[in-house]
Amino acid sequence: MSFNSFGRIFRFTTWGESHGPALGVVIDGCPPGLALRAEDIQAALDKRKPGTSKFVTQRKEPDAVKILSGVFEDDRTDGPRTTGTPISLMIENVDQRSKDYSDIRDKYRPGHADLTYDAKYGFRDYRGGGRSSARETAGRVAAGVIAAKALDHVLDTEVTIKACLVQMGPHIIDRDRFDWAEVEKNPFWCPDPVAAKAWEGHLDAARKSGSSMGAVVEVVASGVPAGLGAPVYGKLDADLASAMMSINAVKGVEIGAGFEAAALSGEENADEIRMRNGKPHFLSNRAGGVLGGISSGQDIVVRLAIKPTSSILTPRRTITASGEETDIVTKGRHDPCVGIRGVPVAAAMMAIVLADHAMAHKAQCG
Amino acid sequence: MSFNSFGRIFRFTTWGESHGPALGVVIDGCPPGLALRAEDIQAALDKRKPGTSKFVTQRKEPDAVKILSGVFEDDRTDGPRTTGTPISLMIENVDQRSKDYSDIRDKYRPGHADLTYDAKYGFRDYRGGGRSSARETAGRVAAGVIAAKALDHVLDTEVTIKACLVQMGPHIIDRDRFDWAEVEKNPFWCPDPVAAKAWEGHLDAARKSGSSMGAVVEVVASGVPAGLGAPVYGKLDADLASAMMSINAVKGVEIGAGFEAAALSGEENADEIRMRNGKPHFLSNRAGGVLGGISSGQDIVVRLAIKPTSSILTPRRTITASGEETDIVTKGRHDPCVGIRGVPVAAAMMAIVLADHAMAHKAQCG
Amino acid sequence: MSFNSFGRIFRFTTWGESHGPALGVVIDGCPPGLALRAEDIQAALDKRKPGTSKFVTQRKEPDAVKILSGVFEDDRTDGPRTTGTPISLMIENVDQRSKDYSDIRDKYRPGHADLTYDAKYGFRDYRGGGRSSARETAGRVAAGVIAAKALDHVLDTEVTIKACLVQMGPHIIDRDRFDWAEVEKNPFWCPDPVAAKAWEGHLDAARKSGSSMGAVVEVVASGVPAGLGAPVYGKLDADLASAMMSINAVKGVEIGAGFEAAALSGEENADEIRMRNGKPHFLSNRAGGVLGGISSGQDIVVRLAIKPTSSILTPRRTITASGEETDIVTKGRHDPCVGIRGVPVAAAMMAIVLADHAMAHKAQCG
Amino acid sequence: MSFNSFGRIFRFTTWGESHGPALGVVIDGCPPGLALRAEDIQAALDKRKPGTSKFVTQRKEPDAVKILSGVFEDDRTDGPRTTGTPISLMIENVDQRSKDYSDIRDKYRPGHADLTYDAKYGFRDYRGGGRSSARETAGRVAAGVIAAKALDHVLDTEVTIKACLVQMGPHIIDRDRFDWAEVEKNPFWCPDPVAAKAWEGHLDAARKSGSSMGAVVEVVASGVPAGLGAPVYGKLDADLASAMMSINAVKGVEIGAGFEAAALSGEENADEIRMRNGKPHFLSNRAGGVLGGISSGQDIVVRLAIKPTSSILTPRRTITASGEETDIVTKGRHDPCVGIRGVPVAAAMMAIVLADHAMAHKAQCG
Repeated sequence: MSFNSFGRIFRFTTWGESHGPALGVVIDGCPPGLALRAEDIQAALDKRKPGTSKFVTQRKEPDAVKILSGVFEDDRTDGPRTTGTPISLMIENVDQRSKDYSDIRDKYRPGHADLTYDAKYGFRDYRGGGRSSARETAGRVAAGVIAAKALDHVLDTEVTIKACLVQMGPHIIDRDRFDWAEVEKNPFWCPDPVAAKAWEGHLDAARKSGSSMGAVVEVVASGVPAGLGAPVYGKLDADLASAMMSINAVKGVEIGAGFEAAALSGEENADEIRMRNGKPHFLSNRAGGVLGGISSGQDIVVRLAIKPTSSILTPRRTITASGEETDIVTKGRHDPCVGIRGVPVAAAMMAIVLADHAMAHKAQCG
Repeated sequence: MSFNSFGRIFRFTTWGESHGPALGVVIDGCPPGLALRAEDIQAALDKRKPGTSKFVTQRKEPDAVKILSGVFEDDRTDGPRTTGTPISLMIENVDQRSKDYSDIRDKYRPGHADLTYDAKYGFRDYRGGGRSSARETAGRVAAGVIAAKALDHVLDTEVTIKACLVQMGPHIIDRDRFDWAEVEKNPFWCPDPVAAKAWEGHLDAARKSGSSMGAVVEVVASGVPAGLGAPVYGKLDADLASAMMSINAVKGVEIGAGFEAAALSGEENADEIRMRNGKPHFLSNRAGGVLGGISSGQDIVVRLAIKPTSSILTPRRTITASGEETDIVTKGRHDPCVGIRGVPVAAAMMAIVLADHAMAHKAQCG
Repeated sequence: MSFNSFGRIFRFTTWGESHGPALGVVIDGCPPGLALRAEDIQAALDKRKPGTSKFVTQRKEPDAVKILSGVFEDDRTDGPRTTGTPISLMIENVDQRSKDYSDIRDKYRPGHADLTYDAKYGFRDYRGGGRSSARETAGRVAAGVIAAKALDHVLDTEVTIKACLVQMGPHIIDRDRFDWAEVEKNPFWCPDPVAAKAWEGHLDAARKSGSSMGAVVEVVASGVPAGLGAPVYGKLDADLASAMMSINAVKGVEIGAGFEAAALSGEENADEIRMRNGKPHFLSNRAGGVLGGISSGQDIVVRLAIKPTSSILTPRRTITASGEETDIVTKGRHDPCVGIRGVPVAAAMMAIVLADHAMAHKAQCG
Repeated sequence: MSFNSFGRIFRFTTWGESHGPALGVVIDGCPPGLALRAEDIQAALDKRKPGTSKFVTQRKEPDAVKILSGVFEDDRTDGPRTTGTPISLMIENVDQRSKDYSDIRDKYRPGHADLTYDAKYGFRDYRGGGRSSARETAGRVAAGVIAAKALDHVLDTEVTIKACLVQMGPHIIDRDRFDWAEVEKNPFWCPDPVAAKAWEGHLDAARKSGSSMGAVVEVVASGVPAGLGAPVYGKLDADLASAMMSINAVKGVEIGAGFEAAALSGEENADEIRMRNGKPHFLSNRAGGVLGGISSGQDIVVRLAIKPTSSILTPRRTITASGEETDIVTKGRHDPCVGIRGVPVAAAMMAIVLADHAMAHKAQCG
């Protein structure tokens, strides 16, 4: 039992608070011999890091990662290689501005974990949300980089994992315009260039009015062979649901047709199968690539609903820790749509779950 | 790592196939001293068991549970009591009719785990879905009965867990007519009497036309104190997501406002707080009773999307294990809407997750 | 966390009390496709079962094992094969004679777990030791049979695991007479025929005088390749220590030179290495086949100290559950040297630990 | 599954290599509200650290610990307090002298994990033993400090854990002179002042002749209430065996009478019980405080055998990684008796196992 760890074989533990000296992650169970440099991880962290556009928090964090263990280089290893022992990564906090949070020390911010941490632990590190801060997800992104390497190594194939925003607030992309190539071209990871353009205005308006917006992230893994997963409680989709729901602000997870499947008929929902190039070929993907908890060889498709940022400038009614009624305005440097920064995190969690299952599959059936 | 177990402290393992001699569950970590009779468990199993109306499978299974260990009675224990050691429960399979499945031995049923089990394990017990059969959920319901007792015992309070069907196919209940008292009065666990009436016709039509329907289940736990759960990877909602997604045919899970939260503004979504009777009182429950992975004291509200039964009489295109294209009609005795029988299973999983977290909370913070 | 489970990937859970209706084991994580019949398991159980000679308990238990799940046979599987899903095994208790234990219901038997179970759980199933009975080890032996098959399958080699008694009471075998072929020829699993002969008299005398004897078991695994195990907390020897210490009545575990290593000099203790047939060849085996927690390719040698049976006919001073001082004589059908029946159990645990590590190694480094 | 973690509820993960930039430990599951300063941990580390006398390695490491997360202080917490979130501790490596190890890069040191790491992982960080270095135990000692606080907090009592060296090489202490007060007065943690005096000469001689000595450590926990532990695989003694065997160079573990129990008769071995001051009082402690895997209220007594340091100046025969026969002399700064530094480590592991079981007991039976 470990509440700050995730994974069965490829297993990692994150630690750290928003305003402590540092935060980090320890990855255990990584295969040995994988090429790994801090730069590989840094590139991914840079996509998630704060301060990259006006649409994300203006906190200035370099999020510079250090590898403290588990990687070794000498003239025979052809660059730094994972050793098979725990990989410890650390990111020092720099731009902490603890004073920003002094006035919310006693007030419970609606939508935040202030009340619940106090209820559980008796007190809390209130600076920047402490352990419940989205800064924890830096560790996930870092672990995701290593997981992606482990996944390809263990499967001896190349799995492609992509993620994007398919909805911002009530605004949904047009699937006919879906283009993965667009995703890196706008600050929203939006695959629909027309929607991306419109979202700028929507989010700007929300931001200026002291409000915030929710979002829906879609993650797709291509190239995953059939057979990863397990029956009953170690189902691939059950693990994906746990992985995604554990990301800050996520309130829903669905696989394939997801909630829409409830409205379909049996004929519509069950993906028919033919042969193509000597391999099973599904004529649709309502299942999202998972049947009975095991990958089918189709794309694995997961969507997650992310609530609007709870830290807003509009005053909200709340109480203090001592039970007095009051109002609160959450100043500070907040993401107007925290879903944007959830995109690389969700992709990382997909890589982590798949790597873990690839290793488990190899252990039992390989 | 155990793919057929669930839970951290209150932990259970299920075993058994649809057409093997028996199936069962072993529960480890249950508190000692809880009153427990086979009849308590039987009552819950009877709600889930097949053959109770024309709207569920006509397989005739008494689903009679035997307690094989972990309970002891003598004149000092005032009836049978849990001993704190593993509780082993067994249900013998009676109405197996293996011959029903002989023609699907080689054909992969679309929407089923036939192809994926073969891909993973090299072969499969094809009789009635083998391990992927919904019969496995009998073990969950049995474990749920014990979990509910453990939960109340550990919290020293009474938690109420209810579940119902809020959508069948495209037909959604009217929330204005929502009445928990209606749930036990119709064969659909539907809280809206008008909808329940209409659903009879819809499901009958689907059944007669060889089709099937999906559904959405809602589970609500009331009376859960604030403080259960944990940060990051042991979040109460992450565990609920895993628990619910592990139920057969579930394709989506959401907490509170769920996917609708994505479309809300920050002001709409963050539940404001006032004091009432000296305790925090939330003015809404968009969060579904969980903030930062920890219970807030509000009702915990989870919904799960269940796909339509994949076993249908309408012919579907598929392939054989050896790669030939063919068609398939899944005869046999199938639920036209497997979501109906998912209702008690979802309630059981809620009890299990809460009991586990109540025990974990006691260990660390009690 | 599960207190009645063992193993990481090849993981099993035992359940059952001495005088309940049955006891059993659920094995999760077994590779699919292994040939497995109840007869394979029965043969091993017969070696451990009670009533086979006057030197073990006279309880008459057929210990007939039933396979309830996880194995499937049809005309394509060439006999029953494991499916990769949980294997549930059950042994019904037959000769329970609960009345034998009625007089120890209130008295704490010295050396037994009576006082400690009451202290932990508030009450206990006092019949035959309940959960602390050595009957639980039947599940281990059954799991060991499957583990041995899994081990050879995963390693694609043949590992030989043997166990014997090298000491009974103060009587130690002569290593110069050590002969594995003798082990099956006497009721003590003794590899020294001269000692075996002498032990008959020693144990008979102990039994007749209402006393009992301790023993030391030695387990040797040959053919284990170098590389199984892991650093630090998942060390092969740490897992072996846990596995062996978990067997009833075991009070010590040592690897290779064990406690004697403390008295050796560095030169004596460190096994020198040469090449032989192109492979590393150690000139001694003080390490017992494990270096840094990882197998070295040498024989893995473990010894365990088993205390004398606590149930004896000689009166001992004790107290009752309500705190009155009294004397106790433990009648019933007890092993005069429980170490004898520990031999197949220790061998089973060796197979289980090795299978688990072989699978873990394959997952990470395979 | 995690090979670098230990514990079920009070769970920690260590990371780091001997010659990497740092090493550390992450502790998850610690109760909130415990007073904790870096100085508390530093005091314990100073007892274990290198360079404190001529009888331990002369490597100069300040072993200065930093707390990176999980502790928070403001004016309401009365000094720094644990928050209930992961506590991350880091110790930077300072005196690494990697060049000392350049000549053993290719040679396998007998008694070391060089060959086995290469066999497992394909290559290894050979500098100072890499992950298999005894430096890893600094993390254990740090975790032990926090565990001891957690233990007392959870039990609401004061448990005393002491450890000492009862044997060095073939030289055993005289139990009649056993005095805990002596332990801190000599560089060997020896409770027998006469033996301590003699050991100086023995160890000096060994050191000067380029040899090394083994040792036996004894750990005693007093004040542990009856009821901690669990049946079968979560036995307190099984966990202690695993904990102790996981310490570098340990080759044997025993509880209470241990291996001597094998030679005792049933009457001698079973500790008789009387009442004293209204509580059960055992007349002896052959069981070492554990019956049926559960604490009995007596002192918990564990001994561990530690092999002589494998790094010696006497030339030994060995091979290279490429299979050539050669000789090796292990220069560098090595402990002539690594058992000495094992004393605080063993005490730390005792605290960790007890804290974990105290929390588990509270969860299930509290």
